Amino acid sequence: MLHSKFINPKNIAVIGASNNIQTPGGSVLNNLISHNFKGELIAVNPKETEVQGIKCYQHVTEIQNVDVAIIAISAKFTLETIKILAQQKNTKGFIIFSAGFSETSKEGKQLEQQIVEEINNVGGTLLGPNNIGLINQNYAGVFTTPIPKLDSKGVDFISGSGATAVFIMEAAMSTGLTFSSVYSVGNSAQIGVEEVLQHFDKTFNSKSSKVKLLYIESVNNPQKLLKHAKSLIQKGCKIAAIKAGSSDEGSRAASSHTGALANSDVAVDALFKKAGIVRCYSKNELITVASIFMHPELKGKNIAIITHAGGPAVMLTDALSKNGLNVPEINNKQSEDLLTKLFPGSSVSNPIDFLATGTAEQLGIIIDYCENKFDKIDAMVVIFGSPGLFNVSEVYKVLNNKMQLCKKPIYPVLPSFINAKNEIEEFIKYGNINFPDEVLFGEALAKIYTTSKPLIEEKINFNIDKSSIRKIIETSENGYLHPEKVKNLLLAATIPMVNENVCSTKNECIQTAIKFNFPVVMKVVGPVHKSDVGGIALNISSEEKLLQSFETLMNIENAEAVLIQPMKKGTELFIGAKKEDKFGHLVLAGLGGIFIEVLKDTQACLAPVSKYEASEMIQNLKSYKIIQGVRGQEGVNEEIFAEIITKISNLIEVAPEIVELDLNPLFGNSKEIFAVDARIRIEKN
Amino acid sequence: MLHSKFINPKNIAVIGASNNIQTPGGSVLNNLISHNFKGELIAVNPKETEVQGIKCYQHVTEIQNVDVAIIAISAKFTLETIKILAQQKNTKGFIIFSAGFSETSKEGKQLEQQIVEEINNVGGTLLGPNNIGLINQNYAGVFTTPIPKLDSKGVDFISGSGATAVFIMEAAMSTGLTFSSVYSVGNSAQIGVEEVLQHFDKTFNSKSSKVKLLYIESVNNPQKLLKHAKSLIQKGCKIAAIKAGSSDEGSRAASSHTGALANSDVAVDALFKKAGIVRCYSKNELITVASIFMHPELKGKNIAIITHAGGPAVMLTDALSKNGLNVPEINNKQSEDLLTKLFPGSSVSNPIDFLATGTAEQLGIIIDYCENKFDKIDAMVVIFGSPGLFNVSEVYKVLNNKMQLCKKPIYPVLPSFINAKNEIEEFIKYGNINFPDEVLFGEALAKIYTTSKPLIEEKINFNIDKSSIRKIIETSENGYLHPEKVKNLLLAATIPMVNENVCSTKNECIQTAIKFNFPVVMKVVGPVHKSDVGGIALNISSEEKLLQSFETLMNIENAEAVLIQPMKKGTELFIGAKKEDKFGHLVLAGLGGIFIEVLKDTQACLAPVSKYEASEMIQNLKSYKIIQGVRGQEGVNEEIFAEIITKISNLIEVAPEIVELDLNPLFGNSKEIFAVDARIRIEKN
Repeated sequence: MLHSKFINPKNIAVIGASNNIQTPGGSVLNNLISHNFKGELIAVNPKETEVQGIKCYQHVTEIQNVDVAIIAISAKFTLETIKILAQQKNTKGFIIFSAGFSETSKEGKQLEQQIVEEINNVGGTLLGPNNIGLINQNYAGVFTTPIPKLDSKGVDFISGSGATAVFIMEAAMSTGLTFSSVYSVGNSAQIGVEEVLQHFDKTFNSKSSKVKLLYIESVNNPQKLLKHAKSLIQKGCKIAAIKAGSSDEGSRAASSHTGALANSDVAVDALFKKAGIVRCYSKNELITVASIFMHPELKGKNIAIITHAGGPAVMLTDALSKNGLNVPEINNKQSEDLLTKLFPGSSVSNPIDFLATGTAEQLGIIIDYCENKFDKIDAMVVIFGSPGLFNVSEVYKVLNNKMQLCKKPIYPVLPSFINAKNEIEEFIKYGNINFPDEVLFGEALAKIYTTSKPLIEEKINFNIDKSSIRKIIETSENGYLHPEKVKNLLLAATIPMVNENVCSTKNECIQTAIKFNFPVVMKVVGPVHKSDVGGIALNISSEEKLLQSFETLMNIENAEAVLIQPMKKGTELFIGAKKEDKFGHLVLAGLGGIFIEVLKDTQACLAPVSKYEASEMIQNLKSYKIIQGVRGQEGVNEEIFAEIITKISNLIEVAPEIVELDLNPLFGNSKEIFAVDARIRIEKN
Repeated sequence: MLHSKFINPKNIAVIGASNNIQTPGGSVLNNLISHNFKGELIAVNPKETEVQGIKCYQHVTEIQNVDVAIIAISAKFTLETIKILAQQKNTKGFIIFSAGFSETSKEGKQLEQQIVEEINNVGGTLLGPNNIGLINQNYAGVFTTPIPKLDSKGVDFISGSGATAVFIMEAAMSTGLTFSSVYSVGNSAQIGVEEVLQHFDKTFNSKSSKVKLLYIESVNNPQKLLKHAKSLIQKGCKIAAIKAGSSDEGSRAASSHTGALANSDVAVDALFKKAGIVRCYSKNELITVASIFMHPELKGKNIAIITHAGGPAVMLTDALSKNGLNVPEINNKQSEDLLTKLFPGSSVSNPIDFLATGTAEQLGIIIDYCENKFDKIDAMVVIFGSPGLFNVSEVYKVLNNKMQLCKKPIYPVLPSFINAKNEIEEFIKYGNINFPDEVLFGEALAKIYTTSKPLIEEKINFNIDKSSIRKIIETSENGYLHPEKVKNLLLAATIPMVNENVCSTKNECIQTAIKFNFPVVMKVVGPVHKSDVGGIALNISSEEKLLQSFETLMNIENAEAVLIQPMKKGTELFIGAKKEDKFGHLVLAGLGGIFIEVLKDTQACLAPVSKYEASEMIQNLKSYKIIQGVRGQEGVNEEIFAEIITKISNLIEVAPEIVELDLNPLFGNSKEIFAVDARIRIEKN
């Protein structure tokens, strides 16, 4: 938790304060003076007695008790200073701008750990080191500019990169997006993105901002991130995040940057999906999503586009409808009625185009029709620029006015930031946010709409034989489990397996084949990658072939025995699980065969996987139509498929030592699904 | 062709000139006066004797001969005015701003046609009506602002929407992108996007700009667009285009906007691909692509990212590597050497991060290493913003300097348009272009790199029986061809068909099956959708089953006979062709079965399809690995597959009356491919 004095200090000391505002210690003092801090400022600098009009002490020992210390001195002097502040000056909040800690060397890392210990000992809070600081409603504790427009209902922004935070604030300022707070976590020595989010969650109340933005380069504590993001969203918040380093090369770039190991990107996607976080990939996308969050929530898919210029409306229509939203045709008595109130040549079929000559009054009428008379419309986008002939502030006043009054969200796309520069600035001063690029806006709106809210936790039914599972795991060694143990684990987890029998002799083979009925399948036991060594014989239909195959298979290197199963038919399916470092387990599902190997058509979910999530995984497959049944082919029972996915999730929850699990293939039809081959690898600490 | 006097007039008359610069007639005169026109200006307005300091005539009959007339009067007065100008004043260039023509009514369309005739009669050129005009090196004949920075090597921009052109110019201005000309074609009554492109092509010389941008809402003459775009690109030009209305809903929006029927989007994609046009979807993407075009061409995939701020570098690395470019690790003696010249903590492994404290001199050294010592690097991106502490103009000077000297392209990403506003403006004044968003830049760079140049025309080998094909077409009626005719057409086109025989009696069936060997396939002849009526019997392996199936099939409604083929095995393939309105024929290919029906995995090419293009189609399939052979399964002979695709292209060239053609399925293996079912529909005028 972040200390309350850190959030709202009575006084702040700047250690390393300077008259030179080109230095961090000078610039932060300048920001604190110019922006809103109501408490007392104290400067520390051995060479000065006054800095920027503030009394300056030569040594930290000389100052009174302070709530927050902002430290802008060389790394090597920080520990001593912090000891004095923590032990003698009752300081609870620390911001360390200085670099030269864990990001550079082992010694730096040690120093950083010592500092954290000192601060932990007094229950204090540390932001940084190696960051740009903190801006909140109470103080502007950063050494960078600009300080964005602050508003308690603005965006709370947590950034893993200080420079990125600056660039995002710079890009956001011209749009009208406001901020409630900006946290730059730097090396996250004590407080990282997860801890700030936890703080937001724990302190959330009716006055809190409901929009959170994250820029993350490394997820240090995925489960904490998931827990608090989900909790905040369930309390009514909206969260968008960039997790940079999403490509393999990007991860390498992130590693070399932060000294942190990057996590698998599929796991990040799965985590965000489970939490309900909207994932973004660029600063402008993040800003656009945040700006949409600041508007009333979109409740349906149907968008009306109101414009005086066709081109942007067409591009926006493309962007919306390609990404899952509709721009439905409007064609009814009311729309005919509306048409009579516009200039000849206008179109009301949606996009509603009221021409280059359209007036402010007409815009008001159109918005009223969309708000009150066009039932199937859920939101409006107003695109209105200027060719530079005349002032459009009357139009923007009407737009502003309607935005206050209407229940349906109205999104303003005002592209003329040269011709209508002053009018847009005026419009923003009313408290509005502008979307300068219609396509970026359209894609962002659709992405938000199609991001699901997190589920209320379903009670997961553990109708599985936990003690057998634990016993198998505890009696096994690290590595791939023997087929017999795999079978018993899956049986204990009530996962339907095709009948099978391990045979060591020809006679056993014959007995088994008679029991199962021909045709049967034979698989070598011993080698892990059976198909690579020619260890699978399908469709054995006679005793003669059975004996032949037995000999062939037993001649394979490392062959111990032969496993016989009845030959099953149906659609090939796949279920897998993988332990993904700190994230926990990912469960994967899809069709088998070429669908995983060529088309990589799988869906992933972070465990535990609920029945609802399992169904969603199935339905999100590109090949879902095949599961439904297509071209007269029998489909696969979705209910049973989803159930087996949740059972795999249950299994790994009971046996978290499973690091890899593959059911590949399962065969499924409309009545039943059987796993016919499985591999499980465990790793105990 | 555009008249030379229209491009470079000695004098220009503004009809409807006004002192009120809030009107088109006032604003255009103001633009002409303020921007660079070296010739004489004449104003016409019945109520004035002088307008904005220019002598004003009361009627067009009173003026001297003029090369260009810009007309900003009510539509109903335009025809009379144009008659006088064309017939009596030797005017060759006309720009009509006025609306109220083909976009609003039948009468308007007639009036527009009469105007075109008048202008055609004197060999004149008409831009518009219903447009914002023309800006080129000689005059600023638009009524809108802003007038962008002009430069003969800047961008030539043709827009189907005036407002969109304005918004694009507004967005481009802050980046430093310059323009050579801007054409707003309005209703394209005489001169559309295609004709302006033709003009660029015909007049292209060493002084011409090499970058063309198009904003298109409706492709009126696809073949003309293709011809001149391709020709320009082969002459060294680069072209990017937005074709708005790419979604179904977007097309509707475009239709209601321009009164033009939108064309199928697949055809647009195919046309752009054949021409080598980079397709864009938003104004900022178009501007970014154009800005990259203005840099030296990227010759390879390997990009070095040079930065003082990790975050944007990581996001850019993600964007590049997800879209087909590399940010290769740099780790060799030279990079170790470079590291010694930077501050401790810097990283040179790529991204090259020289820290927040990095200097201008260090930037210069890094660029020199990338240019001269890191052989595998093809281009550099320099990301350098400012936290607001100090001026970065020294850094930007070094950057500018290196950009002039280096052979490898250097792309500047300068994100601090608040903190480094003045320095960026200075940097742009040197003639540079800035990329404010690293991700948008990265995606655009990759899109350009992966867009192929147009092919030099391959001679297509027409080794097919043209006269037989023509004879079949000429003796057939509109609609689906009879199977016998389909077979003969395909044989004449030398397309390998599975052996087949149409049988009307049981005896014929038995004779055929004996000739082909069991198993065989039986298909009903008569109904078009055979599988829907249960008209296909596979794998007939005995005489008994043969006779049974014959009876069943002949009982189907409209059954005329039964077609027997040998039962072929292999991978199911698909080839199709479709006449796409003005575009000509699209040829499609892919795998059959679920690959077309569920996964929609097809590639399309505008006919004629060369062997190279056919191979590219095959290799671009998502399921290409299956054609190559995967999981021990035999693949498909690509050479033969490509050949059959080109033969289909040949066939439709000889028989353009074919409006739909389906080979579905063909069966292919590594040695041979046979079509086993085909449908052809023809439509003669």
